[in-house]
Amino acid sequence: MTDLLWPGDHRAGDLMSAAALLDAMLAVEAAWSAALIDRGIAPEASRVDQRLLAGLLDENDHQTVAVGAEDAGNPVVPLVRLLRDRLGAEEAPSRWLHRGLTSQDVLDTALMTCARDAVGVIRAEVRVQIGLLCGLVERYRRTEMVARTLGQHAVPTTFGLKAGHWLNGVLDVLEDLERATFPVQFGGAAGTLAATVELAESLPSPVEAATGAAEVAADLLGLAPSLPWHGVRTPVTRIGDLAVRCTDAWGHVANDVIALSRPEIAEVREGVGGGSSTMPHKSNPVLSVLVRRAAIAAPPLASTLHIAAADSTDERSAGAWHVEWATLRTLTRRTVVAGSQTTDLLRALHIDEERMATTLSAASGVRSEQQTMAALTGHEPAATYVGASDAFIDAALVRARAALSEADR
Amino acid sequence: MTDLLWPGDHRAGDLMSAAALLDAMLAVEAAWSAALIDRGIAPEASRVDQRLLAGLLDENDHQTVAVGAEDAGNPVVPLVRLLRDRLGAEEAPSRWLHRGLTSQDVLDTALMTCARDAVGVIRAEVRVQIGLLCGLVERYRRTEMVARTLGQHAVPTTFGLKAGHWLNGVLDVLEDLERATFPVQFGGAAGTLAATVELAESLPSPVEAATGAAEVAADLLGLAPSLPWHGVRTPVTRIGDLAVRCTDAWGHVANDVIALSRPEIAEVREGVGGGSSTMPHKSNPVLSVLVRRAAIAAPPLASTLHIAAADSTDERSAGAWHVEWATLRTLTRRTVVAGSQTTDLLRALHIDEERMATTLSAASGVRSEQQTMAALTGHEPAATYVGASDAFIDAALVRARAALSEADR
Amino acid sequence: MTDLLWPGDHRAGDLMSAAALLDAMLAVEAAWSAALIDRGIAPEASRVDQRLLAGLLDENDHQTVAVGAEDAGNPVVPLVRLLRDRLGAEEAPSRWLHRGLTSQDVLDTALMTCARDAVGVIRAEVRVQIGLLCGLVERYRRTEMVARTLGQHAVPTTFGLKAGHWLNGVLDVLEDLERATFPVQFGGAAGTLAATVELAESLPSPVEAATGAAEVAADLLGLAPSLPWHGVRTPVTRIGDLAVRCTDAWGHVANDVIALSRPEIAEVREGVGGGSSTMPHKSNPVLSVLVRRAAIAAPPLASTLHIAAADSTDERSAGAWHVEWATLRTLTRRTVVAGSQTTDLLRALHIDEERMATTLSAASGVRSEQQTMAALTGHEPAATYVGASDAFIDAALVRARAALSEADR
Amino acid sequence: MTDLLWPGDHRAGDLMSAAALLDAMLAVEAAWSAALIDRGIAPEASRVDQRLLAGLLDENDHQTVAVGAEDAGNPVVPLVRLLRDRLGAEEAPSRWLHRGLTSQDVLDTALMTCARDAVGVIRAEVRVQIGLLCGLVERYRRTEMVARTLGQHAVPTTFGLKAGHWLNGVLDVLEDLERATFPVQFGGAAGTLAATVELAESLPSPVEAATGAAEVAADLLGLAPSLPWHGVRTPVTRIGDLAVRCTDAWGHVANDVIALSRPEIAEVREGVGGGSSTMPHKSNPVLSVLVRRAAIAAPPLASTLHIAAADSTDERSAGAWHVEWATLRTLTRRTVVAGSQTTDLLRALHIDEERMATTLSAASGVRSEQQTMAALTGHEPAATYVGASDAFIDAALVRARAALSEADR
Repeated sequence: MTDLLWPGDHRAGDLMSAAALLDAMLAVEAAWSAALIDRGIAPEASRVDQRLLAGLLDENDHQTVAVGAEDAGNPVVPLVRLLRDRLGAEEAPSRWLHRGLTSQDVLDTALMTCARDAVGVIRAEVRVQIGLLCGLVERYRRTEMVARTLGQHAVPTTFGLKAGHWLNGVLDVLEDLERATFPVQFGGAAGTLAATVELAESLPSPVEAATGAAEVAADLLGLAPSLPWHGVRTPVTRIGDLAVRCTDAWGHVANDVIALSRPEIAEVREGVGGGSSTMPHKSNPVLSVLVRRAAIAAPPLASTLHIAAADSTDERSAGAWHVEWATLRTLTRRTVVAGSQTTDLLRALHIDEERMATTLSAASGVRSEQQTMAALTGHEPAATYVGASDAFIDAALVRARAALSEADR
Repeated sequence: MTDLLWPGDHRAGDLMSAAALLDAMLAVEAAWSAALIDRGIAPEASRVDQRLLAGLLDENDHQTVAVGAEDAGNPVVPLVRLLRDRLGAEEAPSRWLHRGLTSQDVLDTALMTCARDAVGVIRAEVRVQIGLLCGLVERYRRTEMVARTLGQHAVPTTFGLKAGHWLNGVLDVLEDLERATFPVQFGGAAGTLAATVELAESLPSPVEAATGAAEVAADLLGLAPSLPWHGVRTPVTRIGDLAVRCTDAWGHVANDVIALSRPEIAEVREGVGGGSSTMPHKSNPVLSVLVRRAAIAAPPLASTLHIAAADSTDERSAGAWHVEWATLRTLTRRTVVAGSQTTDLLRALHIDEERMATTLSAASGVRSEQQTMAALTGHEPAATYVGASDAFIDAALVRARAALSEADR
Repeated sequence: MTDLLWPGDHRAGDLMSAAALLDAMLAVEAAWSAALIDRGIAPEASRVDQRLLAGLLDENDHQTVAVGAEDAGNPVVPLVRLLRDRLGAEEAPSRWLHRGLTSQDVLDTALMTCARDAVGVIRAEVRVQIGLLCGLVERYRRTEMVARTLGQHAVPTTFGLKAGHWLNGVLDVLEDLERATFPVQFGGAAGTLAATVELAESLPSPVEAATGAAEVAADLLGLAPSLPWHGVRTPVTRIGDLAVRCTDAWGHVANDVIALSRPEIAEVREGVGGGSSTMPHKSNPVLSVLVRRAAIAAPPLASTLHIAAADSTDERSAGAWHVEWATLRTLTRRTVVAGSQTTDLLRALHIDEERMATTLSAASGVRSEQQTMAALTGHEPAATYVGASDAFIDAALVRARAALSEADR
Repeated sequence: MTDLLWPGDHRAGDLMSAAALLDAMLAVEAAWSAALIDRGIAPEASRVDQRLLAGLLDENDHQTVAVGAEDAGNPVVPLVRLLRDRLGAEEAPSRWLHRGLTSQDVLDTALMTCARDAVGVIRAEVRVQIGLLCGLVERYRRTEMVARTLGQHAVPTTFGLKAGHWLNGVLDVLEDLERATFPVQFGGAAGTLAATVELAESLPSPVEAATGAAEVAADLLGLAPSLPWHGVRTPVTRIGDLAVRCTDAWGHVANDVIALSRPEIAEVREGVGGGSSTMPHKSNPVLSVLVRRAAIAAPPLASTLHIAAADSTDERSAGAWHVEWATLRTLTRRTVVAGSQTTDLLRALHIDEERMATTLSAASGVRSEQQTMAALTGHEPAATYVGASDAFIDAALVRARAALSEADR
């Protein structure tokens, strides 16, 4: 269901949705089941695959699990209870389900699975943006316009260089996106994997069997193998920081578009302006407005993840863990939405070169710095005053190409 | 639909939900329609009441409106379009619907309506908590226990006084709750009510007719009349601050319960402990954990509302307004949930007086300060060392009774 | 010493400075001494007044106390040790100094004293602003200009009404400022006043003597009497919220000035524009920029105070208390600075009525809404389209006058 | 001067102090001077080195510059004016000083210089912590204790593994620290280097000369060469995120120490406990308390840097840039302090193995999970139940050694 109060929310589709998370929890339980069997810890008869588990649930169960989550403090407990019930309490699949795991294992790993999917979409979006921005940079490389600092006219620049700064912002983000990792969480009740080792007691190397199971399950889920991180929340805070760096970069673009599309400036405008409920003449920079919205809201959400991480206590935190789930969900969904909106914004952005030229030529004082410099060295002022813009653009383009081809590898 | 990732979310029921907000938007349009007619601005034939408007919508329209919200940047535009369509474009109700208003009028007023309902529930909850806390304070007024500062044993106190501090925290909140106001927003496109005044042009006093309509509509909605506040966001930030003050007070209770229910301390425990997915012996302080969670998450959300308020620009902000809706929704819903959980926590809290006595008597050094004082004045140490606890408790109880009877009036 | 990295910091003078806080701590110890003597708890010979205590310290002691604060975690412990030393360990003033108090009593009360002074300055500033804004509102009541929403031209408004919105924002703040209270903190080691009661053991009513001493000390310090609030941090969070509401209101003004002084718009400009290190032609809206800066930084600081309040645990928090001091200091100083800058900004603001008229008359579509309304009712469009602006301005002025005269009483 | 309200502040010494920043600004001007000369842009006679510039200033100038910063909105303008004055307005050094630069170049680059020094100290501290933690992990590898989740006893773990989690947290931080870069900012008025190119107009390749000068200056300052990033604030937000990740990791240690040193638990204690102003028996976990304080305060400061970054507009932001300076200063100084305190905490941490054993053996139910597992597989429960603790410890130690030797390279 699309969030009525976050226009554009539908762009995130099912990413990080309740349905996606429930599916991911089932996938975690299924991967663990397969891993226990693979390592000889559990009998073949205990196998449950994700499809089997999904088949046990009907559409009302989401609500049952969500409401039931309060008793134990998390949704995994009621979900496991319900699955065990439906599997038939005395049957092997039921008796073996979730053995060795703790709720946090399932929920953290499910969140990582869903976050990986969301970050994948964001990364793809960013790569498209890089392409679009390279196009803008090239095309408007020599389009002079007035640079503005503190809102006031400063000296000339080019629109190409402005777009080059947007590009650099997005390239910074891509660096972080390429480094993102999504580790599994398999540690059992206290991060020792003790229950799994106990289950493997009759095998020659119970500890190797248990840690091996964790690796197999990571592999099945397509996540990074990892030591347990119940109390070391770096995987979560890194995703949060990543999301905010994205919205920072996009917010910069949105702010510039909002400023430059003011009718008195009118140097750029969104390709498809938004209407008004009462003023037909208006053409609002709606995508920019919505992206800016996301950029305002994101930092405090990432901050919440850090506050929670910094509150980590004992082998599982009393509240700090619980605050992460919805926060990470909301933050990543919104980042997906803002990314998609930014792409659309860039794709259809309209640049008014003539207006830029007119404003620049009318801007008083924008060559005064140049005259001071020329006077200092005793030469005539050069015809243009855009300095190293071209060289900076080239450097940004080189960086962009390297980043894209790196990412392709 | 209950939020899978915020256990306890169902306690907030429909408060601030999408359905509630859609209903509230219809109520705003209907109240405005009635007010225009009441003031002689619109013809009787234009009347639309809320029931009529609600009857035009079916269950798929929520999704249509939510998705359509992106084009104009808010859900009011597609809602009004859809309602006008269904009312029959050429008919008076359609032609008059929403006349004089802007999207922000409808959305801000609808949010105030829903926030008022949520705050009403919170206030009722706080009053129940005050009653419960008065009971705890009275009952354990003479139950001595060790006071702890920075986690270490300090000197004796009483559990009654500890509960008295919880009570004072909640009483501080009630002061703010009693002052809460929920103003309507009726200003039209730029906060001048110009369209309404224009519609009233043929009346003797168009301005009085327009401002009168705003008052009538406020009255119909049960909200406070108000000047337009499109760019002055105090009504929103005050609700946000209020919510955080609630979760601050409840977080304090939750933290104390989590600390004191550690098995090594075991002086209190939640009446109904939460289970574990793998450890049957555990009795987790789940309500406290969930309340603490809310207390961690709330301050950055209220901070977001302030960041948005401080970003206010022009007659309607480009992004700062848009960030408020979901933020306010999430913050108030969670506050309702945490309030309800705190009430349950207080109602069933189990106090182990014997354990408190044992710990106190074994605590080394807790009388050393007393000995220093007695030595200074040259008298024998008194039998007890709880100072003015009783007087402080009395003062808190007096304050509580005054607050409750004030609130009754 | 002025903060090099917070231009304008000198405007806050000594408010909330280290020197002011040290003085305030001495004032607290002196008031407590006087109160103990007044209530017959301590002998006359133990009396220490603030001047005496201040005379014991030299300019190097600030550094000694600041460095020494780490051992005990707060500056009161080394300060008291140093004072006792200098008073002569065996003398009555030394032996009685700080008796009955805990470090938190002294530090919290000293912070309240300094915060009261800062808030007093802010309140005075706000009242001046209200006067200035009333002047702007009156003077430009009929100065039409284009209203802007989402950065785009909407419909006409008046500059008087825009200033009226600024005024309403500041009036909202004044309401909160008038309600601000600054309670003493006198509770002793665990908030029971046990040590003081013990010291009063030989008096007829030790508890009354102790609580009476707290009231006397409150009176001497000009603060509100209060139950101990070691773990109930409302006095701190309320000041934080208050500060942010101030910067929200001023940020709104600053944003509008920054936007409207863009050279393409040029409808207002700061009376004294700031220069540039390299571009002599520039006239930057520096005061607005610095006020906007404060408005961006303030919400997360107030949020920190709430996070700390919500972390309250036991009879004194392990870290949450300690985070408040510098946070409150920085937040209130910056608020004083921003308030003073906003006053200067308003006092010298230059309004270009001609430019407003030109822009409005050139703005396409700003009368289209009016035409729709006129068509709906079948009359000719009125000559102006500023609706109830005048009535809204009158209401704001009435409110302003009531607020100022209320505050005078 | 040590911050009276942030005990431990002296540990940061002069890092990021006003004096250090002023020196760094002089270093930037001097490096730029040398670079212009090196590239043949400025004459040899214009050379100013840092020592020369420093010699022009006396101790009152800090205050002059700090107060003067308000007029232009930043401290570089009054500093340059003062230096030019003292260099003799007509002399070459005066006439060439700062040519080609803008205030933001000097301030951003100076902040990067100072931040690099602070991060260097933090990195060294983290490496010491890794060594200390490896020692704890090895020594207590087989020291069993009860694991606690949500404050309640869960199953056995080892203190070695707990320390191993602390170690993993710090190793995560080291990864980020090793990646930290500190770019120069040399872009001139609008990020085009136009003034420098103009100054180089008579050289064969003015653009190459200008960009070459920026590289030379970067080299002289020991910073990374970079395209201008006036509006792309990644260098700042990355440092902020880095700082918070540090305090997250240290906060985790501090929380555990605070919890485990509660007298009822008493499994660890700080080597040197802090005293109380009134209770001689107390031994407060003061370092932990102060580290926890920093961990609470840091996330909102980093969030402020992101909010500022996301507000980036035009070629220089109106307020968003200005908010960064003091925020970055405070955040990095506090991180240095917290890092040093954590090292001390770890170095002297006292572990009570006997108490751990006693608590574990008395903990009811901590083997119940094991019995369930044994029953499921039909074997006798193993003698211990710490699962893969040893293997996880080995993995953490391997990671630590790799990280340290990597860092050595």
